Formats: sequence, C-alpha cells, structure tokens
Amino acid sequence: MDSAASTAPPRPWPLRAERPGPAGSGPSLPFAWLDGAARRRAEAGLTRRTVPRPVDDALLDLAGNDYLGLLRHPEVVRAAADAAHAWGAGTGGSRLVTGDTELHGELERELADFYGTEAALVFSSGYAANLAMVTALAAPDEGDAPLVVCDRYNHASLIDATRLAKASGARVTVFDHADPGHAAAALEGARERALLLSDTVFSVDGDLTDVAALAETARGTGVTALLLDDAHGLGVVGPGGRGTLTLAGLRGARDVVVSVTLSKSLGAQGGAVLGPRRVIRHLVETARTFVFDTGLAPASAGAALAALRVLRAEPERADAVRGRAMELSRGLRERGLTVSTPDAAVVSVIAPSRESALAWRSACLEAGVRVGCFRPPSVPDGRSRLRLTARATLDDAAVRRVLDVVSTTRPR
Amino acid sequence: MDSAASTAPPRPWPLRAERPGPAGSGPSLPFAWLDGAARRRAEAGLTRRTVPRPVDDALLDLAGNDYLGLLRHPEVVRAAADAAHAWGAGTGGSRLVTGDTELHGELERELADFYGTEAALVFSSGYAANLAMVTALAAPDEGDAPLVVCDRYNHASLIDATRLAKASGARVTVFDHADPGHAAAALEGARERALLLSDTVFSVDGDLTDVAALAETARGTGVTALLLDDAHGLGVVGPGGRGTLTLAGLRGARDVVVSVTLSKSLGAQGGAVLGPRRVIRHLVETARTFVFDTGLAPASAGAALAALRVLRAEPERADAVRGRAMELSRGLRERGLTVSTPDAAVVSVIAPSRESALAWRSACLEAGVRVGCFRPPSVPDGRSRLRLTARATLDDAAVRRVLDVVSTTRPR
Repeated sequence: MDSAASTAPPRPWPLRAERPGPAGSGPSLPFAWLDGAARRRAEAGLTRRTVPRPVDDALLDLAGNDYLGLLRHPEVVRAAADAAHAWGAGTGGSRLVTGDTELHGELERELADFYGTEAALVFSSGYAANLAMVTALAAPDEGDAPLVVCDRYNHASLIDATRLAKASGARVTVFDHADPGHAAAALEGARERALLLSDTVFSVDGDLTDVAALAETARGTGVTALLLDDAHGLGVVGPGGRGTLTLAGLRGARDVVVSVTLSKSLGAQGGAVLGPRRVIRHLVETARTFVFDTGLAPASAGAALAALRVLRAEPERADAVRGRAMELSRGLRERGLTVSTPDAAVVSVIAPSRESALAWRSACLEAGVRVGCFRPPSVPDGRSRLRLTARATLDDAAVRRVLDVVSTTRPR
Repeated sequence: MDSAASTAPPRPWPLRAERPGPAGSGPSLPFAWLDGAARRRAEAGLTRRTVPRPVDDALLDLAGNDYLGLLRHPEVVRAAADAAHAWGAGTGGSRLVTGDTELHGELERELADFYGTEAALVFSSGYAANLAMVTALAAPDEGDAPLVVCDRYNHASLIDATRLAKASGARVTVFDHADPGHAAAALEGARERALLLSDTVFSVDGDLTDVAALAETARGTGVTALLLDDAHGLGVVGPGGRGTLTLAGLRGARDVVVSVTLSKSLGAQGGAVLGPRRVIRHLVETARTFVFDTGLAPASAGAALAALRVLRAEPERADAVRGRAMELSRGLRERGLTVSTPDAAVVSVIAPSRESALAWRSACLEAGVRVGCFRPPSVPDGRSRLRLTARATLDDAAVRRVLDVVSTTRPR
C-alpha cells in the first residue's frame, strides 16, 4: 500500500530555511576560464556538439557500433521491456547490497560460456568494466605494485584506468602501437607481477592487434597477465563472433582477462569482465566501479542476454558484418579513396585535412548517410579520417548507396 | 531487409587459424597472488559476495536506494518498456556520434528545470558523472591546474575523480568531514582556481552537510567553484525533493555544479551533472566519460524521465520518505539502540563489533528484512553499523515490522 500521504511529518531541515536564490546568483569568476577554453577549441576546429536524433530518424547509420543489427531486433527489444516489467526499471543499489538479480547471474554465465572463461562480471558500462579490470588487478599486494605495460593507442577508459593504477603505486610503461617486440622490451623490467594491456580491435582504425603474439610475449616473462579490451571484437571477430580469445587460441587461458561491452554488438548498455574465477572473485570484492556503483538496469541486462542468444542462434551475423566491412573497403578503394583494410567492422577513410574531414561528414549527412569523423586530438597519428562501421544487416542497396555518397562527396 | 545470409565471405583472419586452447592453458602464476589476497580478506572478515535475488523476492527491502518507491511504479516501468520499443535497447554509440536522442535532451531539460540550473548532461552512471564533473573542471588551463579541496568522507567516485585530477596536475587537499572551517583553511592556498568538493547527503551515515556554509566558504575566496554530489539528495531533501541546491538557496548559482544519480530516487540507471550552461558545454566537449562512453540506454532515460514527472506530480513523496526515516530512527532509539537522526532517507544503527554487525544483518534477513551492513574499511570511522534506508511507500505495518525485527535480532 502506498501510504505516502499518511506518514508522519518530516523533520525540520537541519540547515536554514529555503531561500530561493535569484537566478545567476554567486560569482561567475570560478568558471570564467571555461569561455577562453571553449574559444580556443573553436579556433582549433575542435568544437563538439550533441545532435539529438528524432525517433523516426531516416538516416542510414554507418557511425554507430550496432554491428550485428541487434539494437532494434524484436527479440532484443522485447527482452528489454520484459525485464523492466519483471524486475523494475533499475536495480536499486550496488550488486553487493540489493542490486543483484538472477538475470545478472544468467547473463554472466552465458557470457562466460560464450567466451570460454570460468566466470564473468557485468558492469554498468564498458568504461566501468575497464576501470575495474585494471585497477583491481594492478592493486598493490603486500606492498608490491605491478608493472603495467600499455599499447600507445589504448582506449580512453584503459588509459584512465592506468592513471588510477599509477596513483596506487603501479609502474606504467607505454609500448608502440601493435608492436609485441616493443612490449617484450618494456616487460623486461617486470620483477614479480606485470600486466600487459591492449585493445584487441582498436576503435579508430579498426585494426586487430596480434593477440596471440601478445600472449606469447606475456608468457615469456612467466609473471605477466594479459588484459584485453575486446569491445569491438565480441560478435564480430572469431568463429560465430566469439571474440578474440577464441580466435587467438586463448579460450580458458589462466593468465588472460578480457573486457567486453554490451552496448555494441549486443545492442544494449553495459560492460563485462571475463576470466578465471579467482579474478572475477577479486573484482567482486575489491573493484571500486563494481562495489560503489548501482547494478546494471534489468532492461539492459535482459536485452544483452537476448542479443547474445540471437548471435548464438545466427552465428552468420559475425561473418556478415565482416563481409560488409570488406565490401565497403574494396568499393571505396576502387573509387580512388585511401581506405583501411578492415580486420573487424570499422572502415577508416583518410581525409586530406581536418577541415575537409568535417565538411565531408556534413556532406554525407546531407545526403542521408551518417558516418563518424575523427580528427586531432582524437586520432593519435594526427591523420583526420571518416570512420564507417559496417552492420550485418546492411543490404546490397545500402552498401551501394554508402559507396556512392561517400565517394561523390569526397573533398576535392 | 536483413541480408545477413547473403553477404560476401569475410576476409581470412589476419592472425593464425583458430586453435581452441585446452581449458586451463597458460601459466597460473600471474594471478596466484589473488588467492593470498582473498585469504587475507577472509581472515579479516571482509569477504563479499553477490547474492542474486529471484524475481519474486518476498523480502522487505531496507537496503536499496529506491527512496520514493518508483523503481516498480507502473508509469516508470511502462516508460522504460516504451522507450526500448521506440528507440531500441541501446543508443549504439557515444552521444557525440550516434548515441544522442531527443529523449536524452528531454530528460536533461527537465532535470535542469527541476534543479533550477541552466543545463544538465546525462551519463551512463553516477560514477561516470562524477568522474566527468571533477576531471573536466579540474583540467589544466593554459598550464595552470586548480586546487581541489575534498571532504574526507566523499564517495568513492569523487575520490577516484580526484585521483585522476591529481594525475593531470591538480593539487589535492582533504578537509575534515563536514567542517567548513577546515575547508576554508584548506582553501587559503587557492591562487587562481579552486574546487570545493563534497557529497551533500553522505551515503553511509546519511548526514547532510551544511551546503550553504560550504557555498559561503567557496565564495569567500572569490575563485572557488562548489561541486556537490547530490545522489542521495535528489527526491528526498528540499521542498518536493528538489534537492540540496534548492534547500540551501543556491538555485541558479553561477559558481555551483551538482551531480545526481538516476538510479536512486528515480529508480532507473545513470547519472547527470547539472549547472551553468558553460560548464555543461565544457563537459560535452572534454569529459572523457562522456566523449568515450556509449549513451545511456533509452529504457533508463525514459524511466528516469517518467519518475521525475511522478515526483513533480506527487511532491509529498519526498516528505514521506523523510518522515518514514524519522519513524525508524525514533522507534529504534526507543528500543534502546544507538541510531543516527536522519537528515534524509538513511538511518544508521551502530553495532557492537564488525562480527556482530554481519550476524545482525543475517538475522534480519532470516526474519525477512534486508538491511545494509557497513564495516571497515567501508566505514571511515571504523564503527560497524547496519544501514537502513527508508522508502516513501513503506506503510505503517512495514515500519512496525522493521522495528520489531531489527530490535529483536540485536546482538546481545
């Protein structure tokens, strides 16, 4: 029974009574510097804006990460709605307090089974999963903190995680992008514990690093764990989209931990860390973005679980998205553009300059095709480019339309 | 048209062919230290476990943060389901790329209006919102990084954010909990820019800090912005649950920024930062947990928006939850227990020891009442306690039952 109207009167406020301040009260000086910073970003062409989509957006989207076309799949959407009805709109607390449900456990068991790991742990975002994976495993142990060796182009969440690990005492070294030899050299300083940390598919260029070589590098030291971010690998690489561990022969490895997102191929929201049971137990007990965060919303957990089941039932979706990415790459190259050869779903198209990249994206948008655009400082090598993402459900007409639009709007 | 089956064959794998590794391959040494760490936690009584709830959980929950009883409110749940159907199960990308929707914009406008700020920005979690708020506003500007002055008991997400700010060059100082005088002393070192950073309602003890005094302290320096985490204030404190800014006479303040969660009073998932327009613009353009994270799932955004509208239509829910918290506090004190006087929804009940706190919680659980339990190192002052959270929708019989169960199971 809802008795909101019948309860006792609340306690008087411990502070002064309400005094509605006039709009614009308080000094403006503390944030005055933001205007200068914004002006400098504008002058450098780095202004960013959110652009809310309408619900009936008619654009052909090649900018998002819905690689398998599951974000609006009827079974996935129905599972989201059903989970909200069954469990409520949220979880109400940390997973350690009141926010854990059997739905979360079911999702974790199926994720672990799909990747061939002993266990999995779900977070409210991939960002939170990466912070947890790195900081918990880089934590000092009996006064000794590990060496953390990172690919130079790792995702922002891994970089932030590494900064936090460094603040807790870890030594951090960066190795040249996708260079296992340089990683091996960096690991020569490893004494008792080390972590080798890399994206699998890098989000900007879409290149897949040589995970098996990284594993051999780590194992060569005898004391190094390999931590991978497979956000762009799940659902796309490996047989049936089983991801990079399967591809690189690392299913069940005792020295490898991998993070994934539920917001790309699985069309929902959230992230997860997968690995040996003792690693997952350690995260449950110590990872701050697990312990001190509210559990993932049931709708997102339910949607991700349904999407994973669709992928298992239709493993050809993983082949399809890679095939479409290859068609886009070949087609754009045939039309004279400088294009990456995709290892996964991301196709990178080089632009002559930062300004032309922005104009190119706008021209594509006007022609009805949304593509991504990366420019400094987001692109680590300073080369501006369009970023196209393939989707398993693109049909031939859509691919032709993208090829036409992107090539005819190219900067001259 | 879904053409997954008709696309071109994928590119051959750039790595070696699949070699499914044997279960348990790779050395176990890199994670062997975890077993020792787990053993030491167990010996210290610090083992934590997730306990998945079934869907028909019959427990009376006084551990979660669903303060207004909106998590399962029919309008909130329906809004979650409707949003998933209309927008899909996820947003498919960063808000800056393809993940922004009109639903997110609508939620942000209504949150800003409710708090009386110029603008708002929604994140995938409160943790992400706090990381964004602090790191973006503590960023170096033209080589100068600010002084960041923090309450000793700030939430883990604010502490992590402060660690990241420090890694970017900010100077960080901690002041004694809820002591504006000590904060003022710490701010004496402020030169050009400073940030004063505090929870409003502290999550463990549930005490409300003197926000107006903190604002006066900040303003006394002329260069200090006040950043507040109102996660436990939204929906609970201030007239109609409008939160701590309204309560402290700071609506529309130009020098104050506040973060909230969508996962407590609003029963969904996510977080938001609210403040002056130029602050929000700065976060959109520079905050890493905004730029490099997938947008909040539509179901969570829709649910939070619906919950906010219920709260506006039924402002008495805020009075009700505080009234229920006071009843719990008074009733437990009358029964001889050592209990906090709640400023918001959280009631803290002191236990004789860490072990007895755990046993007490278990006894409550066996009697059908779920309560929280805090023990070192989670409680900063080393005092173990039960943590009860009131809910606007608790009826008289439920309150009586809680009083009976908690008092009769008390450690002797």
